[in-house]
Amino acid sequence: MTVAIIGIGHIGGSLAITLKENGFADTIIGVDKSQQNLDKAIRRRLIDMDCSLEEAMQRSDLIVIATPVNALMDLVPQILDLTQPHQVVLDVGSTKELLLNIIKHHPRRGRFVPTHPMAGTEHSGPEAAVPNLFDHKYTVIIDPHDSDADALESVRAMYASIPMHMVDLDAKAHDVHTAYVSHISHISSFALALTVLAKEKDEGRIFALASSGFATTVRLAKSSPDMWIPIFEQNRDNVLDVLDEHIQQLARFRSLLIKRDFDAFYQLILESNNIRKILS
Amino acid sequence: MTVAIIGIGHIGGSLAITLKENGFADTIIGVDKSQQNLDKAIRRRLIDMDCSLEEAMQRSDLIVIATPVNALMDLVPQILDLTQPHQVVLDVGSTKELLLNIIKHHPRRGRFVPTHPMAGTEHSGPEAAVPNLFDHKYTVIIDPHDSDADALESVRAMYASIPMHMVDLDAKAHDVHTAYVSHISHISSFALALTVLAKEKDEGRIFALASSGFATTVRLAKSSPDMWIPIFEQNRDNVLDVLDEHIQQLARFRSLLIKRDFDAFYQLILESNNIRKILS
Repeated sequence: MTVAIIGIGHIGGSLAITLKENGFADTIIGVDKSQQNLDKAIRRRLIDMDCSLEEAMQRSDLIVIATPVNALMDLVPQILDLTQPHQVVLDVGSTKELLLNIIKHHPRRGRFVPTHPMAGTEHSGPEAAVPNLFDHKYTVIIDPHDSDADALESVRAMYASIPMHMVDLDAKAHDVHTAYVSHISHISSFALALTVLAKEKDEGRIFALASSGFATTVRLAKSSPDMWIPIFEQNRDNVLDVLDEHIQQLARFRSLLIKRDFDAFYQLILESNNIRKILS
Repeated sequence: MTVAIIGIGHIGGSLAITLKENGFADTIIGVDKSQQNLDKAIRRRLIDMDCSLEEAMQRSDLIVIATPVNALMDLVPQILDLTQPHQVVLDVGSTKELLLNIIKHHPRRGRFVPTHPMAGTEHSGPEAAVPNLFDHKYTVIIDPHDSDADALESVRAMYASIPMHMVDLDAKAHDVHTAYVSHISHISSFALALTVLAKEKDEGRIFALASSGFATTVRLAKSSPDMWIPIFEQNRDNVLDVLDEHIQQLARFRSLLIKRDFDAFYQLILESNNIRKILS
């Protein structure tokens, strides 16, 4: 099978290595608006060849769109215009409601399968492409009933080949849940980094004292704004709702500290320990 | 050398394995108020023998106190009362100002070396003891001029044997900096866990969707309240100050989302990316 990957960054590049390595794809074609990214992808052997979007649409069976989510708004309709009846198109973006509204009435909507593999790191670009990024993680398949049965089957086969687990959600539920379990984590890390940067001028000292606890909670603060701003734009209402809730939770801790009510503080920590059950 | 470790939990137990394995200690004596912890420590071969505090003070050259910080308030003066002129005592607690005020005028103050190895995980107890926990991390040595030169030298030799890097700070600076780079990370994780737990009732769904980003930012929410409440009690003013700053940073993000000012949001993310320079 020939797979075209549109957007050869961290996610697209990692998928390229994985699908070639496991034999799902015979040939991987890379498309990217940055020729520099394509050159890197060729040098790192992430892809077999690069070409224009139009040529890729002629030559491939499965088209994976792995660009930042703002680019999807124009790109998905444009790609669906070029899609032939035997081809399957999927995206791997972090937000879905807006995109799916835009293509709701597209005549080729059935060839498109919206997906969101829940994997990724704070790194970006083809230089951050790694094998095994997706192994045994979850992919969300969004609104599966709006895709043609054979298209859905091809996409499920692709994710199963990695292997990844799959879970189905509607677009609204997907966007709400990712606000909770992914988008708010990033804002929390950005804010934590700014808190420390604002307070600590002596960078050498932060470095010396930064324990592994700090390093993990602030890891996501290294994430690229080019990827994340479009996500926050598109999922703004859900993110705002969760951010409000998060600030209120922090305000509870603040209030208990002010009142020196360490018994209630203890109970809050115990309650938060329940996250153990969820993240084995 | 015979080393006594008072408090055979995650930190004390890990130190026990490490110092025995690298040959710094010939014999490790364990002391713990929980006989169950001592039994586990013997079964897991973390310690060579257990005994009472009094007996341990008779038999050891170096005494490491690795209890939660509330226990230090009574334990350190009590141990210094029993300390002989050739013995060296150190603690590994996360807060220092209060403790050092309490023992400021103790006649054996010079035998005591306050330290804080910046390592640890969200786990606790002797079952969480692991080798290599401290390798190449930083230990803070607090107020080194208040310790006898030979005591200081023994403690530096102990940390160098692991090996760990060392940095000197006064007690006030230590407590302020750990509020920034360790204590606030924990409150942020506790609050994030509560945010998600409050919003998501369907635990299976969180599990499925929880990306690695969420898992790392919320990892510290598994931490034990028995360890952390005493730290927050003792470092309350510094933690409150940093928590206020953190809530204000989150409020900036909230305000920009409300105003849909994604250009300024982009700049804030770029600014927070500077944390990269600090955490390689």
